[in-house]
Amino acid sequence: MAKTINVGMVGYKFMGKAHSNAWRQVAVFYDPPFVPVLKAICGRNEKGVKEAKEKYGWESYETSWKDLIKRDDIDIVDINTPNSSHAEIAIAAAEAGKHVFLEKPMAMNLKEAKAMAQAVKRAGVKHMVGFNYRKFPALAYAKELIERGKIGRVYHFRSMYLQDWIVDPDFALVWRLDKTTAGTGAIGDLGAHIIDMAQFLIGDISSITATTETFIRERAIPEESGGLSAKGGTKRGKVTVDDAFVALARFKNGALGTFECTRFAIGHKNWGFFEINGSKGSMRFNLERSNELEYLSADEGDEQGFKTILVTNSTHPFMSAWWPPGHMLGWEHSHTIQVYHLLDSIGKDRLPEPSFFDGAKNQAVLEAIEKSSQDGKWHDIEEVKF
Amino acid sequence: MAKTINVGMVGYKFMGKAHSNAWRQVAVFYDPPFVPVLKAICGRNEKGVKEAKEKYGWESYETSWKDLIKRDDIDIVDINTPNSSHAEIAIAAAEAGKHVFLEKPMAMNLKEAKAMAQAVKRAGVKHMVGFNYRKFPALAYAKELIERGKIGRVYHFRSMYLQDWIVDPDFALVWRLDKTTAGTGAIGDLGAHIIDMAQFLIGDISSITATTETFIRERAIPEESGGLSAKGGTKRGKVTVDDAFVALARFKNGALGTFECTRFAIGHKNWGFFEINGSKGSMRFNLERSNELEYLSADEGDEQGFKTILVTNSTHPFMSAWWPPGHMLGWEHSHTIQVYHLLDSIGKDRLPEPSFFDGAKNQAVLEAIEKSSQDGKWHDIEEVKF
Amino acid sequence: MAKTINVGMVGYKFMGKAHSNAWRQVAVFYDPPFVPVLKAICGRNEKGVKEAKEKYGWESYETSWKDLIKRDDIDIVDINTPNSSHAEIAIAAAEAGKHVFLEKPMAMNLKEAKAMAQAVKRAGVKHMVGFNYRKFPALAYAKELIERGKIGRVYHFRSMYLQDWIVDPDFALVWRLDKTTAGTGAIGDLGAHIIDMAQFLIGDISSITATTETFIRERAIPEESGGLSAKGGTKRGKVTVDDAFVALARFKNGALGTFECTRFAIGHKNWGFFEINGSKGSMRFNLERSNELEYLSADEGDEQGFKTILVTNSTHPFMSAWWPPGHMLGWEHSHTIQVYHLLDSIGKDRLPEPSFFDGAKNQAVLEAIEKSSQDGKWHDIEEVKF
Amino acid sequence: MAKTINVGMVGYKFMGKAHSNAWRQVAVFYDPPFVPVLKAICGRNEKGVKEAKEKYGWESYETSWKDLIKRDDIDIVDINTPNSSHAEIAIAAAEAGKHVFLEKPMAMNLKEAKAMAQAVKRAGVKHMVGFNYRKFPALAYAKELIERGKIGRVYHFRSMYLQDWIVDPDFALVWRLDKTTAGTGAIGDLGAHIIDMAQFLIGDISSITATTETFIRERAIPEESGGLSAKGGTKRGKVTVDDAFVALARFKNGALGTFECTRFAIGHKNWGFFEINGSKGSMRFNLERSNELEYLSADEGDEQGFKTILVTNSTHPFMSAWWPPGHMLGWEHSHTIQVYHLLDSIGKDRLPEPSFFDGAKNQAVLEAIEKSSQDGKWHDIEEVKF
Repeated sequence: MAKTINVGMVGYKFMGKAHSNAWRQVAVFYDPPFVPVLKAICGRNEKGVKEAKEKYGWESYETSWKDLIKRDDIDIVDINTPNSSHAEIAIAAAEAGKHVFLEKPMAMNLKEAKAMAQAVKRAGVKHMVGFNYRKFPALAYAKELIERGKIGRVYHFRSMYLQDWIVDPDFALVWRLDKTTAGTGAIGDLGAHIIDMAQFLIGDISSITATTETFIRERAIPEESGGLSAKGGTKRGKVTVDDAFVALARFKNGALGTFECTRFAIGHKNWGFFEINGSKGSMRFNLERSNELEYLSADEGDEQGFKTILVTNSTHPFMSAWWPPGHMLGWEHSHTIQVYHLLDSIGKDRLPEPSFFDGAKNQAVLEAIEKSSQDGKWHDIEEVKF
Repeated sequence: MAKTINVGMVGYKFMGKAHSNAWRQVAVFYDPPFVPVLKAICGRNEKGVKEAKEKYGWESYETSWKDLIKRDDIDIVDINTPNSSHAEIAIAAAEAGKHVFLEKPMAMNLKEAKAMAQAVKRAGVKHMVGFNYRKFPALAYAKELIERGKIGRVYHFRSMYLQDWIVDPDFALVWRLDKTTAGTGAIGDLGAHIIDMAQFLIGDISSITATTETFIRERAIPEESGGLSAKGGTKRGKVTVDDAFVALARFKNGALGTFECTRFAIGHKNWGFFEINGSKGSMRFNLERSNELEYLSADEGDEQGFKTILVTNSTHPFMSAWWPPGHMLGWEHSHTIQVYHLLDSIGKDRLPEPSFFDGAKNQAVLEAIEKSSQDGKWHDIEEVKF
Repeated sequence: MAKTINVGMVGYKFMGKAHSNAWRQVAVFYDPPFVPVLKAICGRNEKGVKEAKEKYGWESYETSWKDLIKRDDIDIVDINTPNSSHAEIAIAAAEAGKHVFLEKPMAMNLKEAKAMAQAVKRAGVKHMVGFNYRKFPALAYAKELIERGKIGRVYHFRSMYLQDWIVDPDFALVWRLDKTTAGTGAIGDLGAHIIDMAQFLIGDISSITATTETFIRERAIPEESGGLSAKGGTKRGKVTVDDAFVALARFKNGALGTFECTRFAIGHKNWGFFEINGSKGSMRFNLERSNELEYLSADEGDEQGFKTILVTNSTHPFMSAWWPPGHMLGWEHSHTIQVYHLLDSIGKDRLPEPSFFDGAKNQAVLEAIEKSSQDGKWHDIEEVKF
Repeated sequence: MAKTINVGMVGYKFMGKAHSNAWRQVAVFYDPPFVPVLKAICGRNEKGVKEAKEKYGWESYETSWKDLIKRDDIDIVDINTPNSSHAEIAIAAAEAGKHVFLEKPMAMNLKEAKAMAQAVKRAGVKHMVGFNYRKFPALAYAKELIERGKIGRVYHFRSMYLQDWIVDPDFALVWRLDKTTAGTGAIGDLGAHIIDMAQFLIGDISSITATTETFIRERAIPEESGGLSAKGGTKRGKVTVDDAFVALARFKNGALGTFECTRFAIGHKNWGFFEINGSKGSMRFNLERSNELEYLSADEGDEQGFKTILVTNSTHPFMSAWWPPGHMLGWEHSHTIQVYHLLDSIGKDRLPEPSFFDGAKNQAVLEAIEKSSQDGKWHDIEEVKF
């Protein structure tokens, strides 16, 4: 009989739905060392959280995260609230001895992130930041190919994360457009993801220069606070975060990097893209075709060309749990794989990846982007070690 | 409090896993009129079915389908056994007053299919054949566009379903390569799907000519019977089904059709593809990029071009239940949507689509393909009405 | 000082323009054994042919092809008139001792084609049919890869040649839609090309079944006879050729083939496409991206994928004469390369490819398509040997 | 009888070959007001220039450009020598009263470019810089769509020009890698092109920040100076130009821009790519598929998607002169169209585009890139007006 582990989750909207699904599905497809029990879901709005509890299959609910982390029957705290509350909840959860699984971006700033990393380290709990894209089989396979030397010395990493969900001027001023709650706009939401991919695949960034833009500076305030979208009312307010940023970077290994993130690229819904060019080969990936990895080997002479690898064989990373070759996974599967990785790491007493330490490194880059966008200069990335 | 409905499922391998998932997930994402209860799973191998029961979350198991359909606490019988047993189980289930959900292809031949269709009609139960591809949002959207007149008079339907899983001569002689159990090879497995797409999108086929080929005629017999693959032993046997077929067809509406299905198209894992050309526009779809639909409008003059529509908006068919735009669905989601459609149809007392009546029409085409591949002539498709 | 060779060309419209360009360009980019001299252009309409002479740089013109082939100063006769006149001119030219370069399709029927092949053989002249697509570097490279064993045993050849230039019902009844002048519609115009590609890459076809359709059966008769398009007048006439055909084939080497050609595939301008699947690999080509060849090797395990090879390296076939890698060639270049091949073959006293013998084999398939489209049966391809 | 105009060309290697072809072809396909006469070709190496004269069809040759521009029988001077000689020759040619057609990049620095622009203005001659990519029908069509309001307010311009021809460390130190002759590396060679596209399509750039890298800093010195490639000898020298640069920019109209140019992107031969995102739509273009333009309209709701427009209709810009729809143009055709534009502008007494004034604006951006790559700061682009 498999051992169980109890999960308490703070947050119940878009990400809460995705995480709930992951917790429910993981032990059906994988054999984790612990079968997760969806013990308690937590949110401030009782009606909302109660509905989510029913819909997503949680055993109980709480309306105060403090109550949740006090409970003895919670082993893992899963935090997917707005960014401004990440640090407080995560630190308290760690101090209460819970393993912590936190949605990205890690924090509002580097100072918070460092405090959080220190807290989990001190507490001796497991910790993971929700950079779920690392867990797409195609991306895990990209990492494998790199480790097998298929790229060689890296010359270029170019990346972009393009969306268009606020391109309509009538789109309301939701919490993600408000600096107080979200910290930043495209930087933390989209930039955090592609910088994580860069750090995962290429390594540390040493310096960066960036600029940001807010194309539409005033929007209607929503009548009701909410999730990803909301109906705007008659009052208007200032957009206080970036709609887009662009950045140039240098990696420690000598590679040049480019980063562009925007919510104003009409026609792109979730175009998270990177390309790597090295001495031995090149590769490309795009979230809108997340089952595919493109690879080109330098060694093929006149037969050289980018090939599209459908990363759905049972021998590809994480794939044996699912369907036959050519039977696609979706976005949600990366979340299921992510919690599998967390459970597996707890079982093996290993640090999950990406940990809070990785998350803090990520935050250091985000911080440098923000600073550079203010002074127009190159900024060295602060080294963070734990 | 939602009403429940009890499901009993016969078969527990590849398709059993996919169907189990669909039954478990459907009420988390949709609001069907009945919440399905995974009451009993059934398979002849007790050890196997018991494991599946645990893994996939069924309440009980049976080792005889006859016992299963006798149970009073079963409302829906879901049949995903090898093709040779479809007719017997489905007819018995219908006669026992159960709704029947049957994996494709419907039957071993048209005679069986007609008997099955008559049985469900007589019994007054709901019936559905598992042509899950109709339920991909992109395909449902294709249907919508056609109904809105975006194709006009249809000139061409060209289709292919390409796989490569038996291209290796050392691949063993699994049940799908055995006429006794599978009936046919590519015809029933792949052909049934694209013919269903054709019938769904274009309408009835009036006549067809076809030829088949078995490229590798002898293979090692597996040491243990099993699922999609198996280790071959030292004894060899004859492959008694087609590896591939190609066909030309005429539709009642005057369109020309081509169909090609093969398990020998190296590099294609699940390349289920069609293109339609009409007087008002063209469209293309490929299962390997199942979130996308390509469409071209004839009305755009010099701006004309095939466009790639990412069918993931909340306003696209079936999508509001899932994730934000650009967050992909996978193959399994078509199954979840399919059982949602079945539950919804039961709730509304409507015939699900595709029904056994549609399945019998499909079987009539498969039968004509088989006949034509023997005599090399064009065959009119037998009209089946219920 | 390079030797010269004198060319006389019959026909001066679309193909005459393309051939003129090829004759003018060939010695600038290649070093053929003979520099062609554009000696005389011939057409029945004096005004038109005179203008073409000036525009395309010919030294003189004739209004009767009989006069042209009588001239002593003509070494090569290039024929690109409507199909109905091919046989008479080609035979007469051969009998006059001229090398003959003939646009495809070779003839109105197999009987003519055989007579033509016998005539050039008897006369001992060089002969080539204008299947220019063989001369695209990407296609020549495809042939190279096949000869190096990169495909292995061939299982499938699937092909289509899709255009849409007559999809508008108001498009007039030009000569290409008239059986008397054109012989057939899509069969000879498009089918001849993809059958040539099949014969070039896969080998002989042994049997075929086909059907044709004429979607729009009546059109306005043009006020003036002309080239590719013309203004329709008030009188209407019957379209006497096929708008489209579809066919299934078996090759001598055991491969299955599909062929679909149509002028009613809205959105496709010149979509000449094939894919080959074999035991060692697969490849794809499309005229609308004629600088590219897609190839997949069976030997790459989890790294397997179709790759896009840009066939523009100086080491790719025919490419050293042109531009640096990545600098595209266009459609016209295949014609320039084709006449280079003819001149080179004359210089080396070798049979050009494809010769009239190849053209007659091609015609044998076209004839079988026509017959099958009448009786609905499979037809063996008549063996033609010279 | 068409009037003629006499051309003298300085330079006879890669670009000389392309320009010669353009001059020879232009009057065959277009009806320019003057038919160009290939009067004289000029180069320092007598043997080389003599061969080029024969091969490319020039009437005479010179070994000193000063002699060339002295000749009374020269109306247009076409300069495609290494960059370091552009200014001197162009100014002298203008002062001699010749129209000047100059390959890009215009000059070694902004000071030179301004002097050149003033010289041609003073002389009252026509002047054009060889940014031939503007003349691809697809790019001219992009401009048309923008002018018809199909993009709206521009938010983003992202661009890259990726090549890989020096990625091999054994590639020799050719003139293009030498600062003295080439001025810069990727900046002037590739950057000049995509900055021209940006200025053509989006408008003026107001400020820029950039960084450069030379990945391989030492290479073998060629035994013989030459063209694009050369055999390296035993002596080694320093690479004194950039292998790659990356840049961020702001346009006057408020758009953000990114630019990346490199010769180290293995697998890309001539990947000149841009994408524009605006309030009304998006578009993409890639030189490796130069007959295609991708466009997405914001107005299509759920039917929204990027479409691939094959820009080969006779009604697309510059296309009526060539072949039927779907019959591709190649790279060289942009040069032919470019000289057509020059001749047409001379005939109509209009300034050709891009003129030296445009070229100087381009040079101002290149200069800012160089400066920024030294000090890491944002630089305003110097306004240049004539």
